[in-house]
Amino acid sequence: MLQENIIRRLESMVGEENVENSNASLLAYSYDSTPQFQAMPDAVVSPRNTEEVAAVVRLCNEEKIPIVPRGSGTNLCGGTAPLEGGIVLLFKQMSKILEIDEENLTMTVQPGVYTQDVHKAAEEVGLFYPPDPGSMHISQIGGNISENSGGLRGLKYGVTRDYVLGLEIVLPSGEIIRTGGKLAKDVAGYDLTRLYVGAEGTLGVVTEATLKLIPMPEMKKTMLALYHDIEAAAETVSAMITNRIIPATLEFLDQATVKVVEDFAKIGLPTDAKAVLLIEQDGAPEIVERDVEKIETLCRENGAFEVTVAATEVEAEALTTARRAALSALSRLRPTTILEDATVPRSEIAPMVKAIREIAEKYELNICTFGHAGDGNLHPTCLTDIRDKEEIALVEQAFDEIFKKAVELGGTITGEHGVGAMKLPYLHLKAGEAGIEAMRSIKQALDPNNIMNPEKIFTKSVVIDK
Amino acid sequence: MLQENIIRRLESMVGEENVENSNASLLAYSYDSTPQFQAMPDAVVSPRNTEEVAAVVRLCNEEKIPIVPRGSGTNLCGGTAPLEGGIVLLFKQMSKILEIDEENLTMTVQPGVYTQDVHKAAEEVGLFYPPDPGSMHISQIGGNISENSGGLRGLKYGVTRDYVLGLEIVLPSGEIIRTGGKLAKDVAGYDLTRLYVGAEGTLGVVTEATLKLIPMPEMKKTMLALYHDIEAAAETVSAMITNRIIPATLEFLDQATVKVVEDFAKIGLPTDAKAVLLIEQDGAPEIVERDVEKIETLCRENGAFEVTVAATEVEAEALTTARRAALSALSRLRPTTILEDATVPRSEIAPMVKAIREIAEKYELNICTFGHAGDGNLHPTCLTDIRDKEEIALVEQAFDEIFKKAVELGGTITGEHGVGAMKLPYLHLKAGEAGIEAMRSIKQALDPNNIMNPEKIFTKSVVIDK
Repeated sequence: MLQENIIRRLESMVGEENVENSNASLLAYSYDSTPQFQAMPDAVVSPRNTEEVAAVVRLCNEEKIPIVPRGSGTNLCGGTAPLEGGIVLLFKQMSKILEIDEENLTMTVQPGVYTQDVHKAAEEVGLFYPPDPGSMHISQIGGNISENSGGLRGLKYGVTRDYVLGLEIVLPSGEIIRTGGKLAKDVAGYDLTRLYVGAEGTLGVVTEATLKLIPMPEMKKTMLALYHDIEAAAETVSAMITNRIIPATLEFLDQATVKVVEDFAKIGLPTDAKAVLLIEQDGAPEIVERDVEKIETLCRENGAFEVTVAATEVEAEALTTARRAALSALSRLRPTTILEDATVPRSEIAPMVKAIREIAEKYELNICTFGHAGDGNLHPTCLTDIRDKEEIALVEQAFDEIFKKAVELGGTITGEHGVGAMKLPYLHLKAGEAGIEAMRSIKQALDPNNIMNPEKIFTKSVVIDK
Repeated sequence: MLQENIIRRLESMVGEENVENSNASLLAYSYDSTPQFQAMPDAVVSPRNTEEVAAVVRLCNEEKIPIVPRGSGTNLCGGTAPLEGGIVLLFKQMSKILEIDEENLTMTVQPGVYTQDVHKAAEEVGLFYPPDPGSMHISQIGGNISENSGGLRGLKYGVTRDYVLGLEIVLPSGEIIRTGGKLAKDVAGYDLTRLYVGAEGTLGVVTEATLKLIPMPEMKKTMLALYHDIEAAAETVSAMITNRIIPATLEFLDQATVKVVEDFAKIGLPTDAKAVLLIEQDGAPEIVERDVEKIETLCRENGAFEVTVAATEVEAEALTTARRAALSALSRLRPTTILEDATVPRSEIAPMVKAIREIAEKYELNICTFGHAGDGNLHPTCLTDIRDKEEIALVEQAFDEIFKKAVELGGTITGEHGVGAMKLPYLHLKAGEAGIEAMRSIKQALDPNNIMNPEKIFTKSVVIDK
């Protein structure tokens, strides 16, 4: 609980109407989209500008009050659950697109802008902001930056990190710095821009970002390839890459996922296929036509029993919308959906999918798998019930095995969701103790009072011991 | 001077033949390609593997001996001058391409591989490693990584940072960590990979890197556009971008540079033009043809008095080779060549070039300007004589003004050369005191004994005071 005088000071900083501490407000911000992580904050604060953010951070640093910066809370790693209480920082008053610069191909935004609005604003001037995390319709760009969000277009276009050119940051000390800029090249000191992208709000507060835009691809084609077995689908993925074709989207869905999605979306998805690839290519019309033809051939050569190219934009949109609905569709089936993102080199997709299936059978769990095959970024999704302690214990054992297998195959414990609170126990598998220690020393150096999103990525106790 | 017993211990670690401390050897590694920075190291050590690097680093950390990791020393920021003595670490025994993985589109290399050999090995299997710093024929990939090298293809393809997927690093403690991997997506903790790319060897030693490759563009076309004034050339650059054309290379040369290069290369460059754009486009044949046509139109519309497309590959190669020879050509004219890389948003190229010209006139200096116009990454190059103290004082004043102007225009003090020792006094212009303090705290956290390439980026004194 914050003392009454702290609440008063916050109110005088950001305006009374921008400090909430009713039970209903605190409850609303006590969790994000991740099951199993919930804790009440002490106040929810919505500053109106960078100076107000800095004032709040300075106060919190003096009083050692935790701060959790939060967008729409769509993350799947418990990244914005206020586990140590303190202040949840919202950006609803800082949600403007400040500028689109068509000459330098940049957009400057405040953290509270919805990702979808970034896309729309870019498209209105014929430009393109590629990162498209699953939650892009409701996620905010500040959250995308903090989590280094990925999405369906990662294979060809990269992730959020690849589109952040500069940041304004409030450091844990309350000081304001600017990094990067509208610059294709900048090597003036350490790359703080990329350090803060994906730092999950543990190193400071991002208050403004300059994003890179690229020319909008002239056209896009969407296709589906159906397989009688998963290995053939995985081989098709490899065949495309070794044939030097990089599709814009290359999604994999197993039969269980397809069935659930079809039941939800009712657009005629092939529920008899054991595995489905959803493939998009974009670019200049000549190239798209050529690639689609080649891709079709490769799909058939590698065992697809059916390949269909969407005839219209509406048909194509229905397919990608269905894929994007996978999580929503799956989450209707049982009370709790745990969506993971174990990621492997793309050459290891087949062994990874096979391992997930075997692990699910071993623990008698219902695990569907879909994901970004081109990135090796899979989403094994467990349908379970958080109230069933026995089953949840098995789920944890199963995911433990899945993460170990991913790392064993040269992969990582998280491709695009972040560590947050959920993957914290597994980080050592990927980073090693010395790697964690290096990260922790950076955290300690920049945030000695451990106020920024504590209990995320690392455990606090060890930071304090240091 | 290192004590005799330290030399013996180094010899026992890496083999006697891999520790040099003759005067000739020490002199050879007392400087890099940057004028005005020279200091004798105490020993030159060439470890044979990562474990030997770790052993050397551990010893140096215990004994507080500075270590300067060095490739071919082609950097232009005094980044590898051993200003505090100690050990220069060479990678001539760690210069293997370990693997090319065509399915995951990666190449795994040791730091001592020549950049050119990375290009060649990729091309042999139809793949492409885009970063092409000016010195790529003799530079080593480890140096490129430490400096986050840019090059001519930055506009379309990005810089070294965008092609490093994973690293093996020996931390200043001597511990070995691995970051990233053959992964399109990885958000397992802070992005140490990108922190170490461009850290200029101040945070540890990179001992292995996994590089990202992309499919080789099918074809390339090269063209020259000639202008009667610099502004028209700059307007052409803007016109291309606002017309959504992103050329692979978009180089600018002023008349002074063209004259010197022609005198050197004798390939018939147009010495009567006030400004020249060298433009390359690559990709699928249909697109290249279409873009080249559009680019030609845009050049003429924006005031080019002549536009020629290279008819043959040999002709094209001659043009880019001539551009790459600019530094060598300029450096023949006077005893000392100081090449800078003030960088601005590309919309600010015309004002920046104008400012450089005015500053050169004000101080009566000979400054030629060429560079990567598409990136706003200019290379104002001063032809001077380091022995003429009076003139050198003026050169320093002139560059001071140039850096300030670049930052005023939203740019940076260094686009691709790094801070090293040379730009250290100017870093505050770009990063601000709070930004430098944040960087310094990271350095202090990871390298508390300040053994890694000291006196670079920051001054040592402040690190020690902290």
